[in-house]
Amino acid sequence: MAELRIALAQIDTCVGAIDQNTAKILEWTRRAAGEGAHVVAFPEMTLTGYPIEDLALRASFRRAAWAAAADVAAQLEREGLGGVTVVLGTVGTAGTPDTPERAASGAPADLPTNRAVVIQHGEVLAAYDKHHLPNYGVFDEFRIFAPGTEPLVVEIEGRAVGIVICEDIWQDGGPITTLGGLDEAGHGIDLLLVLNGSPYEEGKGHVRTDLAARRAAEVDAPVAYVNMVGGQDDLVFDGGSFVVGPDGSVLTSSPQFVEDLLVWDLPARTSSADLTGTAPATVYPTGRIAPPLHPDEEVYRACVTGLAGYVRKNGFRSIVLGLSGGIDSALTATLAADAIGGQNVVGVSMPSSYSSEHSKDDAADLAKRLGADYRVQPIAPMVEAFQGELALEGVAEENLQARVRGVVLMAISNREGHLVIAPGNKSELAVGYATIYDAGSIGGYAPLKDVDKSRVWALARWRNDAALDAGEIPPIPESSITKPPSAELRPGQTDQDSLPPYDLLDEVLDAYIEHAEGRAELLARGFDPEVVDKVVTLVDRAEWKRRQYPLGPKVTSLAFGRDRRLPVTSRWREPAE
Amino acid sequence: MAELRIALAQIDTCVGAIDQNTAKILEWTRRAAGEGAHVVAFPEMTLTGYPIEDLALRASFRRAAWAAAADVAAQLEREGLGGVTVVLGTVGTAGTPDTPERAASGAPADLPTNRAVVIQHGEVLAAYDKHHLPNYGVFDEFRIFAPGTEPLVVEIEGRAVGIVICEDIWQDGGPITTLGGLDEAGHGIDLLLVLNGSPYEEGKGHVRTDLAARRAAEVDAPVAYVNMVGGQDDLVFDGGSFVVGPDGSVLTSSPQFVEDLLVWDLPARTSSADLTGTAPATVYPTGRIAPPLHPDEEVYRACVTGLAGYVRKNGFRSIVLGLSGGIDSALTATLAADAIGGQNVVGVSMPSSYSSEHSKDDAADLAKRLGADYRVQPIAPMVEAFQGELALEGVAEENLQARVRGVVLMAISNREGHLVIAPGNKSELAVGYATIYDAGSIGGYAPLKDVDKSRVWALARWRNDAALDAGEIPPIPESSITKPPSAELRPGQTDQDSLPPYDLLDEVLDAYIEHAEGRAELLARGFDPEVVDKVVTLVDRAEWKRRQYPLGPKVTSLAFGRDRRLPVTSRWREPAE
Repeated sequence: MAELRIALAQIDTCVGAIDQNTAKILEWTRRAAGEGAHVVAFPEMTLTGYPIEDLALRASFRRAAWAAAADVAAQLEREGLGGVTVVLGTVGTAGTPDTPERAASGAPADLPTNRAVVIQHGEVLAAYDKHHLPNYGVFDEFRIFAPGTEPLVVEIEGRAVGIVICEDIWQDGGPITTLGGLDEAGHGIDLLLVLNGSPYEEGKGHVRTDLAARRAAEVDAPVAYVNMVGGQDDLVFDGGSFVVGPDGSVLTSSPQFVEDLLVWDLPARTSSADLTGTAPATVYPTGRIAPPLHPDEEVYRACVTGLAGYVRKNGFRSIVLGLSGGIDSALTATLAADAIGGQNVVGVSMPSSYSSEHSKDDAADLAKRLGADYRVQPIAPMVEAFQGELALEGVAEENLQARVRGVVLMAISNREGHLVIAPGNKSELAVGYATIYDAGSIGGYAPLKDVDKSRVWALARWRNDAALDAGEIPPIPESSITKPPSAELRPGQTDQDSLPPYDLLDEVLDAYIEHAEGRAELLARGFDPEVVDKVVTLVDRAEWKRRQYPLGPKVTSLAFGRDRRLPVTSRWREPAE
Repeated sequence: MAELRIALAQIDTCVGAIDQNTAKILEWTRRAAGEGAHVVAFPEMTLTGYPIEDLALRASFRRAAWAAAADVAAQLEREGLGGVTVVLGTVGTAGTPDTPERAASGAPADLPTNRAVVIQHGEVLAAYDKHHLPNYGVFDEFRIFAPGTEPLVVEIEGRAVGIVICEDIWQDGGPITTLGGLDEAGHGIDLLLVLNGSPYEEGKGHVRTDLAARRAAEVDAPVAYVNMVGGQDDLVFDGGSFVVGPDGSVLTSSPQFVEDLLVWDLPARTSSADLTGTAPATVYPTGRIAPPLHPDEEVYRACVTGLAGYVRKNGFRSIVLGLSGGIDSALTATLAADAIGGQNVVGVSMPSSYSSEHSKDDAADLAKRLGADYRVQPIAPMVEAFQGELALEGVAEENLQARVRGVVLMAISNREGHLVIAPGNKSELAVGYATIYDAGSIGGYAPLKDVDKSRVWALARWRNDAALDAGEIPPIPESSITKPPSAELRPGQTDQDSLPPYDLLDEVLDAYIEHAEGRAELLARGFDPEVVDKVVTLVDRAEWKRRQYPLGPKVTSLAFGRDRRLPVTSRWREPAE
């Protein structure tokens, strides 16, 4: 029995773009064939994109996906590539509703499944439906899919390959347990293939490889883990595909945040005489290994990947945003320039009478460094027109300035077709240090919505240092990083007039929002009770306002942490004890 | 064995407002006791409000709910009402994660449950955890709760009462099946009590009573169905509690859309000799029956209930909206006046150079009829200030006017504390006949987001006729109902310049959006292919734009139909075949 060459195609798909995903599958299969691969594996729900949410329930969409799988098979056969085994993800059907409550709810008789199909010689040979349907955090799979119940082992070039999907390996007692045994001839499986759509979270790489190593030991065979890459809506997929051996060692791995074809040879099977225990254990070869990224680089590239995917997949080529001279808009513009090119970024300085000279200078300097289209649009004439009619004071006046800037950006977007993006960061959005419908919160995407203020500074410094290391000009003006943050909506205003220092604020926010701790737990951590009360009150109030006006960007860690769904009207406030 | 007097307390709770819900439970228990009831039953999740979504995952919230249940028990005992059995809904805990995937996801060790508790003589006597957790449409219960596995039958005044929660009766094979048999003494249960949080859908009343009748026949005992009432976020609960006998007849019922205490006597048990079959079957008494509402009245009152709940539960006392003189803002203002009183409604006419005289007259006339605070705020000075700087043309200019109106409303809201509401209707939002961030789409709540344009006219006519019948002045000026609809953003513009006639449009929208039909099914219904292509293209494009800018009001039938979650970036378009 010869070696089996496998190729893991870590590609970037787009939800709903069946034709485009099909073309990509054909292209990468040709590449894998060119590398001599016997089998090429694609990520979870390759044909349909992932996550498809309620699109799975539309019958015409499912019909199109089924036709596309047959097209892939036929096309490869026509091209003489029918001998390459292709394993890809798509939407299947369970035939009947899986649970009585779904039947009672009027769900369609043919509930969809999250399916892997095996294509060979012009045909769809076998199918596997994902058993474990995650329905927590950002996942809604139990909502839309029926679970599979059967395991799948296919023979490829005489080797037994088990196939499962993503969440199936995240629990003990899953379909893996049925793959660990030996068949009648005394053989177990030779390889476990896992198709994944695993969203990026900080530091998740090790969790994945550790978990896969446990499964590899259980089935006594290598685990090949292929993950998707790219930004999709508010999720970021980081790739980082790998093969891990039954002894827990990572044998080969793809880099994060880029498409990649990872080729690896499963060695020939040793003879069954080895089962006596006298022969040496199989030695698995080691391929290329992607070096780990610095934590700040990892987060920075996750932000770039998310934004680039959002812009491109929504059919935009350019972005417009307000440049205040502050750190948030400076970092957001830099991310945008790295995502789609500085020449496709329009930065608009919209000074008011409260804007400092250095702010305007810093905004201009930033745009120049990025090669962005820079414009200055004073807001005084419009603010004066509103004030002549409405005579607003205090916060209402501050908000008016902020909203006039929002209207300017939307008008430029309407006229020229750029996507408006919002530079609001997680800390200020969490405590409500923002105006609904202002230039910091309107728009289609808020690249920093999951990045707290402390991290904003860290990412800016990392990006500038990376430029210096590469012999380039650092993109972000030093004074944008070092000056005290201010919204500049009234004279001499700084963020710390109304907020605790950001390093402290961010620690409390992390405990209260990300870890859902209550006041008692926060105090037990040793935080000052006054700070805890202030932050909890601000967050509760801001979250309430945001839910009342369901139009601001979502804040809570969609990409990097837990999704949270909360009732709009909840009167719940963290009790004082 | 004497009669058992039961009271169904159809009350309006608020999510998160544990203290307020507790007070209401005490108040209605006193009322029930005053009526001589032995048992009072409250709706699903009474103490916590419903639906609580991810709030269930916050430990400090759960602790507060558990303390409140003990408080209710102790307080009733102190008041000498410990002999009244109280059945109410709250959040429980399952002790351990129910499924391995949840355990793997890092879910808390004590997953919450959707619980009913039985309180008597100062103690929580028994608990039942909902078995069937709906996770489709507007429901997310599998996401947050662990399912119960045990049935519950409690003895109240010597009678066997089975208790289940909402979805538990919606399927065959649920916990009901274990309640249908006879116990060792040859008795089955005497009554099945169902606690509900069943959202309003048009015509759902009959579905509920038919279903409950089936379960009553199965357990051979009456089913007492208590439902919550009131608006909560984007859901409307209509009440309509009832008791149905095992022969399928509705024995008594509460009206929809109001709080109500429905008292009914379960007759004394006939002797066991009856089991010989020779004795007559139990005769169940008939109480008051609420007459059914006219379909337009039902929808109208659902809209009023939803809006009233949203305003009050979010802590507002007044509303501001733009009045264009058109039918949508006229109906929205009338709904608002019915929800919170005309004196609490601020209507702002914001004429531009394209506004017709009759529009301004109609807006003023409407405000006068409603007793609303009426203001005129021309937008020309602000539009001219923007145009002096930006020189916009075409759609960008139209959108500018619309957005300036949005800023005016938000400024008035900031200054005076009113909630901004949006008058956009379902048809125009569905086809994108609206501007992002304009006066028709900004705000916290869009009362007509689930009402198509044909229905808008029908509701307006119904409301005016109802006023005439009551000898009152019809609130909506006749010309707002009869004139051709127009956005008045350019000279002579009407909706039908760019849209099919609304009656036809609404039929296609219903099939395409509500029933998720594809192009093939639409053509098979006999719709003109040209109209189908136009509508499908408009909807796909509008939905895409709306998802790109996740800030407009949600459109698809949250209150009256299916919730739909779709990926923002989906490239899927209904194919031409």
